[in-house]
Amino acid sequence: ISSNNEYFYGIKKEWPLVDHTEGQLFLNDTFKIIMEEVLCKGTDIKHKVCEWKEPKELALLLDLELRATGEPQHRLLQRVQDVAKYSIKTSHPRFMNQQFGGVDYHALAGRFLTEALNTNLYTYEVAPVFVLMEAEVLRGLRQLVGWTEGDGLFCPGGSASNMYAMNIARYQHFPEVKSQGLCGLPRLNIFTSSDSHYSVKKGAAFLGIGTDNVIIVEVDEGGRMIPDDLDEKITLAKSQGAVPFFVSCTSGTTVRGAFDPLDLIADVCEKHKLWMHVDVSHPVYNTNPCLLTSFCCTVLDLLRKCHSANATYLFQQDKFYDLNLDVGDKSVQCSRKVDCLKLWLMWKAVGSIGFAERVDKAFNQARYLVEQMKKREGFHLLQEPEFVNVCFWFIPPSMRGKEGMADYQDRLAKVAPVIKERMMKQGTMMVGYQPLGNKVNFFRMVVFSPLLTQKDMDFFLDEIERLGKDL
Amino acid sequence: ISSNNEYFYGIKKEWPLVDHTEGQLFLNDTFKIIMEEVLCKGTDIKHKVCEWKEPKELALLLDLELRATGEPQHRLLQRVQDVAKYSIKTSHPRFMNQQFGGVDYHALAGRFLTEALNTNLYTYEVAPVFVLMEAEVLRGLRQLVGWTEGDGLFCPGGSASNMYAMNIARYQHFPEVKSQGLCGLPRLNIFTSSDSHYSVKKGAAFLGIGTDNVIIVEVDEGGRMIPDDLDEKITLAKSQGAVPFFVSCTSGTTVRGAFDPLDLIADVCEKHKLWMHVDVSHPVYNTNPCLLTSFCCTVLDLLRKCHSANATYLFQQDKFYDLNLDVGDKSVQCSRKVDCLKLWLMWKAVGSIGFAERVDKAFNQARYLVEQMKKREGFHLLQEPEFVNVCFWFIPPSMRGKEGMADYQDRLAKVAPVIKERMMKQGTMMVGYQPLGNKVNFFRMVVFSPLLTQKDMDFFLDEIERLGKDL
Ligand SMILES: Cc1ncc(COP(=O)(O)O)c(C=O)c1O
Ligand SMILES: Cc1ncc(COP(=O)(O)O)c(C=O)c1O
Repeated sequence: ISSNNEYFYGIKKEWPLVDHTEGQLFLNDTFKIIMEEVLCKGTDIKHKVCEWKEPKELALLLDLELRATGEPQHRLLQRVQDVAKYSIKTSHPRFMNQQFGGVDYHALAGRFLTEALNTNLYTYEVAPVFVLMEAEVLRGLRQLVGWTEGDGLFCPGGSASNMYAMNIARYQHFPEVKSQGLCGLPRLNIFTSSDSHYSVKKGAAFLGIGTDNVIIVEVDEGGRMIPDDLDEKITLAKSQGAVPFFVSCTSGTTVRGAFDPLDLIADVCEKHKLWMHVDVSHPVYNTNPCLLTSFCCTVLDLLRKCHSANATYLFQQDKFYDLNLDVGDKSVQCSRKVDCLKLWLMWKAVGSIGFAERVDKAFNQARYLVEQMKKREGFHLLQEPEFVNVCFWFIPPSMRGKEGMADYQDRLAKVAPVIKERMMKQGTMMVGYQPLGNKVNFFRMVVFSPLLTQKDMDFFLDEIERLGKDL
Repeated sequence: ISSNNEYFYGIKKEWPLVDHTEGQLFLNDTFKIIMEEVLCKGTDIKHKVCEWKEPKELALLLDLELRATGEPQHRLLQRVQDVAKYSIKTSHPRFMNQQFGGVDYHALAGRFLTEALNTNLYTYEVAPVFVLMEAEVLRGLRQLVGWTEGDGLFCPGGSASNMYAMNIARYQHFPEVKSQGLCGLPRLNIFTSSDSHYSVKKGAAFLGIGTDNVIIVEVDEGGRMIPDDLDEKITLAKSQGAVPFFVSCTSGTTVRGAFDPLDLIADVCEKHKLWMHVDVSHPVYNTNPCLLTSFCCTVLDLLRKCHSANATYLFQQDKFYDLNLDVGDKSVQCSRKVDCLKLWLMWKAVGSIGFAERVDKAFNQARYLVEQMKKREGFHLLQEPEFVNVCFWFIPPSMRGKEGMADYQDRLAKVAPVIKERMMKQGTMMVGYQPLGNKVNFFRMVVFSPLLTQKDMDFFLDEIERLGKDL
């Protein structure tokens, strides 16, 4: 890429590299495709949730290659159409593959506005509305959990939030770590349950603490951390010369949806003077990716002290407004996307009562699903669900009543992958499966979109039966 | 929030918590507001770039409070309107405050589609189109810099990319760091120039390396790292028992837009066997926030080895397709937003030639601006720009020719903040200022939106003169 003298100083007339009229027309047409393909067809049970293609075939269909010259608008619109067509319809009532799904139109409107405004959330100067709005949303969230004070910010996801928490806790224990690093410090230890999310280990590796220094605490039969085991492991770690500093509890574990007993764990943390962190990265519906995650701590100003770099090009001290409004130095990132608008608009639209109703509805649907499972042969629950995660095995007809057989577990382990392959290739629905500890592959249905009806639950069970009946 | 028995098992009829028709109507109306307020008025020089309000007044106007009950659609639309009205118009030709701005309609269309699809980029199963597309865009980017192989991924910003690079380099030097952490390792040293971005220090703190272990290398008069100083500081660090492992160079520094001499630095890195990282976080236009940033390394599979946690609930080994397509374990995050679509669509629209033309245009406008400055009294360049950053002082009439005065620098330092306050309160334009080293506050105009014309450059200079003529 080199500068071309022909164009120098406008000798050649200034050409419009971006034509607003043409551009807005294109955006308008794209919006229509989004409405039609993603939001109408994409949420309609008469249409598939996915259009499975083998990677090679899909690459050919999409013609992904990037070339030297551009393409005309109608080709580009066709591309928009293709991307929509072959992408998974995560708003579809049959998409139950992950811990997100469904669509909330107010949230989506907030997301479109966020993208169009293209704001960078670091100073009041460039983000006046969003600096104030983020503070208000965080206040509202704290209120939901009964806190009257605290600090926080939206981070790009639950993994990032967990890392922020570890870093803040480490800084509180050893403020010198910010300037001097871990070299010379004793070995630090983190505690979390065997059912916690893998981001705790990833975070520990990233922060230079190391995965071996994440001590795994045992869980009870429901997947909840056992406080006594935590206590013992902390004592053991101390006796071995390590410095325990952080306990990561989970409220709603990834697979089983279990809630660690926070009160009892708090006592243990209090006794040993450890930082207690609660990972509640279960997404508020339709906010993931970029999960709704606020990091809250009671120690005011710790976020800023821990992360500040005082860059003079952004956070000038001679500004004409209150510098506390320049929140950018609280985060590890520099540029930060606006994540509060979608939640704020949704909250304004339905109110806290509306949120409560949605949660109720999700719980009720989960209960309904469980009841129906119990009425059918072949569905075997992993455990009674504590939350909206319903984990179960499907036992195909040929295997029923043969639990005693030597290869039973091996055969059962192969059932979920085959049913999953079939549903994806037929595009009828998507649901996740995984093994856990010594439990072989089981399905995990996370029920939390308010769009889901009892009919959807019935379909879900029928479809698993249909896909697995010959296995 | 508690479950309510009244609704239990559908005793009360199933109520549609989300009404698709109503929701789509709302989205449609929001889209119209976005078009009108953000994209038409927001890019029109007849309208203001910002509507300055004091924080207290703005908070009142916006009525941010979150309540128990929801609001009717017309109130919500008014809120959308207000958010748009009081937000900074970053696409406006008079917004030159940061290193982003302008609007590209193809990129924006890609962003809307991304939001509507709400895809989580971790497995081929949920993100078939985007797994393939990201690989293609990264290939295209590598090709632009002349690399035939490598690995990479899109991260949420330049700061995150710099941290990824540090972590990978550390892992390459000491693979045991992933499991054992930094405890027991010697002190690690990072080298970067005094003009590099503050994210290098923030990253070092976050990764447990410590800001004191970021050794600052001197720059020449143009703001470029001095390779000889780097060489000497590496040798010195080694003699003091530290282990140098990482050099972070910058191609296009944040303030001055300087390019570190990569060839000479590469020789130094080669000699000492250090990892050489190049921070090119200058945004491709309209991609920030969530800057376009790909992390590339020549050592294939290092990303995966360094970051993998092998979570069985996402990355099952018994899937029915090629598991290399499940890219999620390469990242530190779990959920990852799709960042490639906007760039891919823009690239398809204009081609690499179109990118080159835009870069040319930006360079030409920057040169034009510099030429015009030289013709006017009162504009004093910090240096001849190497890139599209034009840094300058405005010397108000009352101070001209008085460089010898004792309080000259103190007075000059106060000029930019006052002009800045005035432009914001009048809403006529936005441009950034900062001090640097011993240089007092100067303006930094980053010219890179292809939307900018020579008329905009002339206006910029006229406006600075108008706002500062009485100082
Ligand atoms: C309990 C828990 N914590 C953390 C995470 C990670 O969040 P993210 O994917 O936003 O990084 C998840 C993701 O599923 C989770 O379930
Ligand atoms: C040279 C350089 N590196 C890194 C960054 C940080 O990037 P981000 O703001 O995306 O975190 C910036 C931001 O301005 C930058 O100019």
